[in-house]
Amino acid sequence: MKIIKDKPISVVPGFKTMGIHCGVKKRKKDLCLIYSQSPAVSAATFTKNKSMAAPVMVSQKHIKNENTQAIIINSGNANACTGTKGYEDALKMTETVANNLNLKKEEVMVASTGIIGVNLPINNIVSGIDKCCNLIDNNDGESSAQAILTTDSFTKTITVKLEIDNKPIFISAIAKGSGMIHPNMGTMLSFITTNLNIEKDILNDMLKLSIEDSYNMVSVDGDTSTNDTVIMLANKMANNKVISKKSEDYYKFKKALDYVNKYLAKMIAKDGEGSTKLIEVNLENAKSLKDAKLCAKSVVSSNLVKTAMFGNDPNWGRILCSLGYSGGDFSQEKVDISIGCENSLLDLVKNGISLDFDKTSAEKILKNKHIIIKINLNDGKYKATAWGCDLTYDYIKCNGVYTT
Amino acid sequence: MKIIKDKPISVVPGFKTMGIHCGVKKRKKDLCLIYSQSPAVSAATFTKNKSMAAPVMVSQKHIKNENTQAIIINSGNANACTGTKGYEDALKMTETVANNLNLKKEEVMVASTGIIGVNLPINNIVSGIDKCCNLIDNNDGESSAQAILTTDSFTKTITVKLEIDNKPIFISAIAKGSGMIHPNMGTMLSFITTNLNIEKDILNDMLKLSIEDSYNMVSVDGDTSTNDTVIMLANKMANNKVISKKSEDYYKFKKALDYVNKYLAKMIAKDGEGSTKLIEVNLENAKSLKDAKLCAKSVVSSNLVKTAMFGNDPNWGRILCSLGYSGGDFSQEKVDISIGCENSLLDLVKNGISLDFDKTSAEKILKNKHIIIKINLNDGKYKATAWGCDLTYDYIKCNGVYTT
Repeated sequence: MKIIKDKPISVVPGFKTMGIHCGVKKRKKDLCLIYSQSPAVSAATFTKNKSMAAPVMVSQKHIKNENTQAIIINSGNANACTGTKGYEDALKMTETVANNLNLKKEEVMVASTGIIGVNLPINNIVSGIDKCCNLIDNNDGESSAQAILTTDSFTKTITVKLEIDNKPIFISAIAKGSGMIHPNMGTMLSFITTNLNIEKDILNDMLKLSIEDSYNMVSVDGDTSTNDTVIMLANKMANNKVISKKSEDYYKFKKALDYVNKYLAKMIAKDGEGSTKLIEVNLENAKSLKDAKLCAKSVVSSNLVKTAMFGNDPNWGRILCSLGYSGGDFSQEKVDISIGCENSLLDLVKNGISLDFDKTSAEKILKNKHIIIKINLNDGKYKATAWGCDLTYDYIKCNGVYTT
Repeated sequence: MKIIKDKPISVVPGFKTMGIHCGVKKRKKDLCLIYSQSPAVSAATFTKNKSMAAPVMVSQKHIKNENTQAIIINSGNANACTGTKGYEDALKMTETVANNLNLKKEEVMVASTGIIGVNLPINNIVSGIDKCCNLIDNNDGESSAQAILTTDSFTKTITVKLEIDNKPIFISAIAKGSGMIHPNMGTMLSFITTNLNIEKDILNDMLKLSIEDSYNMVSVDGDTSTNDTVIMLANKMANNKVISKKSEDYYKFKKALDYVNKYLAKMIAKDGEGSTKLIEVNLENAKSLKDAKLCAKSVVSSNLVKTAMFGNDPNWGRILCSLGYSGGDFSQEKVDISIGCENSLLDLVKNGISLDFDKTSAEKILKNKHIIIKINLNDGKYKATAWGCDLTYDYIKCNGVYTT
């Protein structure tokens, strides 16, 4: 598997993409179109928040269609809590794309992100969609990656290339995160494209599994949003022999897809509002996978752990405490805890009791931009990894001082 | 029912109490003894955190004893994650009290609060207990209320007086909160005394019910602690005819007890680390009590709602969003939301859609020190109230910059 740095989505055979400014935001790009020239199968996962935005409701219907050839996304306005008008607007977005590209509206998915409770400036968006469709041959992946952002501080893109059935296969994705990110699909958009030949139901199973270990293991602030959406399109243009479930090629492709999704999950965690560092919790030897996930997520979601990490404080008591209320099963007297960065780990706790560790070394380690908290429950064979970020003054500033 | 401002605990017939400095903290009071001169029945609730502190383990055993005549509490050190030595120390605390006051160790309860993972300075504590027992006739409720505090900014006490069977009945309590407070018993200590004549199992049922609607509906930062403890002693000195379950007197006393516990719950929420205001969520007309509680707690626990309240931002979208991931059942299109203070409410949302409210009025309301968020689900007849506080720069400072 090769990692390609440039041209997200536009590098995948058969896909074209474009991002422009249409007037939802004041100046920044706010409209993104992803288009497959040939028929494609799709899979998607949506927010579990009961206060679901209109575009999510529309996309949940359209995903049932066998063919999906376009995704239209606006940023700056979430089209959430907007009632019947909001639903009509989301539908109108898919219809406008369909009319321009000679598709049916059911072949177009839609997503939105931004402020809640305000109707879309739908005329601006409709004109923008016309413009985007006209410009689609420019095929500019960077503009698309920019156009889906809100409070993000950087674009999140990744492309990998592998070979299946002697054919070159690409997976390329763009994502946005920041704010409200939490396990169980926080406010987060991710759009993944591939030229693989795969059937819809197999793609669907694979994406769901992959999301469980990536986006669903990220937490920024414990809130999950009204608009979370992950959509994947596979346009079959590689012409490989169709992938069958549990074949060698299936696992080869899934491994690459997992890499893509975990990479984006980490970028989303790292770019949490106001964050200064990425926190990775590696939890080992739990009794069950469920216990491993509950424990890892609980630690990475704890406000007290997050503020301790911001303050370079090796406060293992808070880690043990957040394990304790996670709902996961473990024995306090078997827990080992280490903290570190990629090259070195410092043991803090053995069998649930504090070791006599060097506090200065610990504080030095915690000044890194990527902190690893390693927890060994010594109670089974299951493991899980969760990602999050520290909780800082700038988070409060970002969410308290300015109306969003 | 009459509310009495002065002399917590010491005003209840048969009870004596004293708080001193014994050397766990540098200078401030750190040891509190509560003593009933005559036999008393007790009830208690403890943290559900699996990383449970040693004093909790000891008290869980001792609460089974029919007679309970003393509670010993130290602040400054939680005696949590301290292994076998910690357990022995907690036991030693009960033994030392028992020896001084001519009780059995099983008749003494113990609680601790403070830093985690460090052994108690047990010699200081043992000498302190001896001193406290010698001074117990001074019967100083204020010193006791001070001695159980950690990062709290004020003492939390309440006394009420009522009549049952023509006898004067007192209920008096001291509590501590701050930091780590969350539904399901956050880091919180509360000690309640009464001279009522009541049987142990009836007291136990009543306390458990009362806690559900008070301390368990408080959230400061979503973390629950290793040491949470509520203990109630009833020493029967009022000589009233013993209370039978579901009698008129039972409900009269329970109403007073609920008042005491809700008052302390609110004080704990108000004094959350770094907080500038108390947030009260009144949730009405849910399908079930479970839905009402889940929804109310979710709103008051949301970091995004908490930062919005800090910033005087009437961000109803975040309120609706936190209802959506609460796990409680409701219909988005039926939800009404108002915000206000005790004298005035401003409607923000009707049937899930934003009203055209005056933003300046909303911001003015949010500058109050006690904010009410009223949510009507219009979907049933159940209601719940939850309390919390805003999330501020000072919370980050309190928990990130200083090691606790």
